[in-house]
This record gives sequence, structure tokens and C-alpha cells, in this order.
Amino acid sequence: MKRVFTRNNVAVILLFVLMTGGNCFAQSPSAITEDFKPSSVNQPGKEYPQVNSEGRVRIQISAPGANKVQLDIGAVKYDLIKDDKGVWTGESAPQDEGFHYYQLNIDGASVPDPNSLYFFGASRWGSGIEIPAKDQDFYALKNVPHGQVREQIYFSKTNNSTRRCFVYTPPGYDKDATKRYPVLYLQHGGGENETGWSSQGKAGLIMDNLIAKGKAKPFIIVMDNGTWSMARPPAGERPAEWPPKGWADGFTNTLLKDIIPMIDDNFRTIADQKNRAMAGLSMGGMQTRVITLANPDVFSHVGMFSGGSISTEDVEKAPGFKEKVKLVFISYGSRELENPRAGSANPKENTDKLKAAGLNTHFYVSPQTAHEWQSWRRSFYQFAPLLFNK
Amino acid sequence: MKRVFTRNNVAVILLFVLMTGGNCFAQSPSAITEDFKPSSVNQPGKEYPQVNSEGRVRIQISAPGANKVQLDIGAVKYDLIKDDKGVWTGESAPQDEGFHYYQLNIDGASVPDPNSLYFFGASRWGSGIEIPAKDQDFYALKNVPHGQVREQIYFSKTNNSTRRCFVYTPPGYDKDATKRYPVLYLQHGGGENETGWSSQGKAGLIMDNLIAKGKAKPFIIVMDNGTWSMARPPAGERPAEWPPKGWADGFTNTLLKDIIPMIDDNFRTIADQKNRAMAGLSMGGMQTRVITLANPDVFSHVGMFSGGSISTEDVEKAPGFKEKVKLVFISYGSRELENPRAGSANPKENTDKLKAAGLNTHFYVSPQTAHEWQSWRRSFYQFAPLLFNK
Repeated sequence: MKRVFTRNNVAVILLFVLMTGGNCFAQSPSAITEDFKPSSVNQPGKEYPQVNSEGRVRIQISAPGANKVQLDIGAVKYDLIKDDKGVWTGESAPQDEGFHYYQLNIDGASVPDPNSLYFFGASRWGSGIEIPAKDQDFYALKNVPHGQVREQIYFSKTNNSTRRCFVYTPPGYDKDATKRYPVLYLQHGGGENETGWSSQGKAGLIMDNLIAKGKAKPFIIVMDNGTWSMARPPAGERPAEWPPKGWADGFTNTLLKDIIPMIDDNFRTIADQKNRAMAGLSMGGMQTRVITLANPDVFSHVGMFSGGSISTEDVEKAPGFKEKVKLVFISYGSRELENPRAGSANPKENTDKLKAAGLNTHFYVSPQTAHEWQSWRRSFYQFAPLLFNK
Repeated sequence: MKRVFTRNNVAVILLFVLMTGGNCFAQSPSAITEDFKPSSVNQPGKEYPQVNSEGRVRIQISAPGANKVQLDIGAVKYDLIKDDKGVWTGESAPQDEGFHYYQLNIDGASVPDPNSLYFFGASRWGSGIEIPAKDQDFYALKNVPHGQVREQIYFSKTNNSTRRCFVYTPPGYDKDATKRYPVLYLQHGGGENETGWSSQGKAGLIMDNLIAKGKAKPFIIVMDNGTWSMARPPAGERPAEWPPKGWADGFTNTLLKDIIPMIDDNFRTIADQKNRAMAGLSMGGMQTRVITLANPDVFSHVGMFSGGSISTEDVEKAPGFKEKVKLVFISYGSRELENPRAGSANPKENTDKLKAAGLNTHFYVSPQTAHEWQSWRRSFYQFAPLLFNK
């Protein structure tokens, strides 16, 4: 995901741009804490990229014939320095805890780092890095019972094409063929796809750990592709209404007419409104808002992570929503809330008004994170225990 | 996989090296058929890389500041040519039908092509390309009932670590909770991992299509990581015995003590010798040979794809193998057999002798392919219908 900058950050970056012509030079060695360790999402056996205790990312790549090599992370490019063997090395400024997309730029070519694992974001498969987080235990791989993440291929009539989703089934799903489960439909953000939540989102591991501690009721999670095919307006042109009316109709149809019936047909679901939830991050949160407001007979639990909020006016225009929906969960990364855009809705105020109007709401802020996966991992960790309890 | 060259190929390549200093220049435009189409394993929306009807690969990448950009495919490097906008373009010589690993080299840096999907081979995640094959229908994605490919995380006592495998369950597996299935343990090659068979190997799609046509009995496929951790000897030093005695002990233990019991515990298997098969490609074929010869009480069907053969002497030293094993399937790509190394076993002769000695053997040669995935897709397609029929 592109990092969403607050105004202060933008000012700092603009200053850098003015000073350096768009690039940041690597830090002077004396300013850097030398406790770098390989990133946990490196390819097998690779020593670089590395991360230190300040959250700086150190890259190393051999490019003897190159004129200029840069690390591009968090919308800032850092120049690397070449040694006498043609190996380029350099560091970023400290990054927030959690997962970030990044890339290298070699003499003008933007390419993945050959040493990292690859993730789908920013509309491409590319490099990712993990800055170890103080709370990383909740998504750690542990020796607890594990659910399965299943690749399910199915034919979609509304799209007249074969599609793919991933389905998390909780530990023990195959042990008791009589037991049925509630279902959460969980959507990725813009420029991401159906792999995001179980790969960089670690949804399966978060659920395994929650279930092992008895903190969440076991449920099925369906992660499909909600990519929005509508063309964006040219840069600089912002139409009066954005996103335009009907922008979510395509995925609404796919979800209601293809995905939910297919899941209810192929998995042991409890196929009713009380046992069906929808949540999503960013664009997926916006889709969740539109789809659940229009379909309170289908979904009972609603989660929107960094994807807007629901107002009392929205609910007044959505017959049945107030009576039937059991939870509205809204969350953001703290850095997203620091400098709200003038005139935009305040998600906390919206959610407080909704609670005052009698809905069961939760509002969560992820500390010290922006529009990034650490905000959404934490949001999911807060959201999952609230589902299907009543 | 590194391509295995026959002597003639090596001679041709050596000639190129002498002529060009290690690089091949792009073909002159007049020699190239201009019917290039985007590769089927490009990232979403990417126009390059492309493939033409001759099997040539055309790469395009923007690198305005670069001095030299090369396409590295099939152990040959091809120089690309820069236009006045800094975009580099160039083509390879014709490649064999099927899947190939490749990479780009930008001013000395070996990196993935940012436009392709990524696959694990040659001990790294990197670019792959598909040369459309005349027989590609057998692994095409079709509107037929599809099985699931499940990511299964489990704790291995013999390794004292948490491991991962992928498990294919056939269409309808979840529909009838009383039905039990045979199991094939299917291994990747050296430098590959547990993702290979269901990604570039297309094992799931091949099975779905075979089952839809009634050509194969439905069975479970387990794809685990058989990576061999023993260090190779330094280049140029070939010990008398290679691989050394005991090289497969680690994976043998993991398979027999952890994987098989875990699969029998978590899936509806028919947990006996008659309904358990093992197969693998290259290194995975060598592992299959060692493990099944030593354990004819565990496996009844044996497949080795580009991974050696079994001799009558092997069987004489393996008590019970001849009586209990129902199938020995040996296969190679035709190019692998063109110039056998002096003194090495002839797999066809070995297999013929085994048949004469009374074993049920099959020998298959994939036309016009080398030590590559097209040989192994075809081998699996020939092998699967022979399993668990008696």
C-alpha cells in the first residue's frame, strides 16, 4: 500500500526533496546502531536485507557495472554506496513496526530485491520487509493446533470466468464432520489481492493463536479478490463524487451471487445472517461499508480497517441495519488520524454517535502505525474475538 | 532447475562463449517472427515478457541509466538493446515448450523481471515464463470440478521445528465424510521446494482434468519440502561416491515418522501400503528410489521423473520390493537421453530388465524437452492414471 502521509510528514519529505533533489543519502555510519539482523521475510539463506533496533532497513546488492542504486521504501528513495568490489550498501531512515513493501532502483530500473520474499501490493508482486514489532507474538508461528488455508478454484457466473479464493478453516475442522461454523468474508485493500490476508496479513496465524488461547470462537475466513476494475480519473482531476455511484456493484454481485453460495455449498457453514460477517481494509473497508449497509439481512458483523466509518445518517438510510447488525468495528492506524483532511468525516465521532444511537460499536486505534499491514493485523486481532459471541 | 546440457549443447554454447565473450546478442529483427504475445505467467496487466511462435522470449524493461541489460535464460545471457527513451528490449533464441526459470542482469545485478510472476527454483524465488505447448490442454484451467490445495502447518518431532506442506484433496472430498482416499507423496527437485508441484508443476489442475475425464482414480497428493541440507563438495571435486551414503536419511525420517502419520491423522486416507505411492522429480526421484527400495511395506507405487532408475540388482538387495511393489514408473525428457554420460546407467535398459524380471514397469519419454518442468508435468500426467487401479 502507498503510505498515506500526514501533513507534517509531507512537509518533512518536501524539505528533503528540496535539499537532495528527490533522494535521501545514506546515513553517516556513526548515526546508525550496528545491531542489524536479517529480515524474517528474506529468501532462504539470504543475509540481506537487514533491520536494526531503530527500524532502519539495510540493503546490499552486487551491481559492479551500475552507476546508481537506490532503496525505495515508504515513498522515499535512499542512495546506496558502492564498495571496491561493486557491492552496493545503504540504509533507510527508521521505519514503523510491521510489514512494508519496498523495491530497488538500479540505474533507473525499478525491480524487486532478489533477496526478499515477494508479496502482492501496489498492484504488483514485489519485495517486502518486516520491522520486528513489540507485539509480534500475536501473529507468531507457534506449536499450537493450526487451521488450513485452502486454495479454492470456482466458476463465477456473474463474471463468466474461473476465479480463486483462499479459505481458512480452523483447527479441527476435519475432525468432526457434523460441526458447522460461522463465516467471515475478509477483503484486501486497493492494489492487493486474495493472497494478502493470509500472507503479509497473517490472518491464519492470528486466528490459530487466538483459538489456542480460547480468545476467539472458531470460524471460517474467506479471502477473495475484490479488485476494483473501474478506471481512476487522471491524476489531478478529482470528480465531485469519488468513488462514483455504483463503484462497488461488481464485487457486490460476485460476493452475493457467486462467492457466498459457493462457500455455503462447499464448506460446513452456518448459512444465516447471524453467523456471517464482512470486514476489509482500506478499499476492502469501503466495500464492506457499501455492501453491509445495503444487505443487513446477509451480514450481522461489520469491520472496517482504515476504510472509513458509518454515520447515523448512513444507518437511517439503511432499513434493518440498526436492528439486525450486532457489531460495527471501526479502526485506523494512529498516524492516519494525526492530521485529518479538512471537511472529511471524523471516524471516532461517527462511531461514538452510532453507539449513542444504540448500535454495538468498537473503535480501535493501532499505536504508532500508518496505512500499513501492522494496523490491519492488529485490527483483525481486536476484531476476531468480538465475532459470533451472542 | 538448472538445465542439464547434453554434450552437443555444451559444444554449441562453448562456441557462443568463444565468439561473444559469454553473451549472445539479440537476433537481427528480420530473423524473428513478429507474433509475440504476453506470457501466461505475467503479473496482472503486464505486456512483457512476450513469447512468439518460435518459442523466443522477448523482454522489455525501462532502465534509462543502465550501461548493459541482459536476459539470462537456459544458461545463456542475451544482450538487450536500449532505445532513445531508455527502454531496453531483446529476444532469446527459441526455447523448448513449457516452463522455464529466468532472470535479468542489470549492470551486473542479477534480479527478477518486475513483470513476471515468481516461482521457487535454482534455490531462489525468481522469474518464470511459459512457452505455450502443443499439449497444454492437459494442464489448462477449465470449468471442471476442482480439488483444493491446502497449506498444512505441522510440528515435526524429528526436526524439532514447525514445517509446512501442501495437500491436494480431490473434487468432492468434503461432500462425503465417509469416503477415504489413497495418497501420493510427490517430491520436488533440488533447489525447489514444497510450492513447485502445485505452482509451476500444475499437479492440481492435471488431476482435476484427469478426474473430470474419468482417467484417474481420485487420490490425495502430499507435497512437502525435501530440501537436502548436506553440503555439496566444492566445484570440480567429485567424490568417488556421490551422493554419499546416508544422504537421504534426513528426509526419510521426516517422511516416515512425521509426515505420513500427520497426513493419516488429519485426512481421510486409506492408511495402508496398497494405497500409498511415492514419486519425485530429479532429486525427488533419487529420494523416491532410496526410500521406496528400503520401505516396500510402506509404498506400493513408485515414480521417478528425471531422477535415475531402479536396476534388478537394486531390487535383489531390497527384500519384499519385487513381491509388494505394484508399479515402477521411470521417465525422462528426450533431450536428457540424447547423449548419456559414459558409464552411467541406461534407464530404459534398467527398466526393461526389471520388467523381464517380473515387475510392472512403465517407461515414458517426454518429446523434445530437457530437465525441465514440461517433462515432469507430462510424466505426472502419464503416471497418475496408473495409480491405485488394482
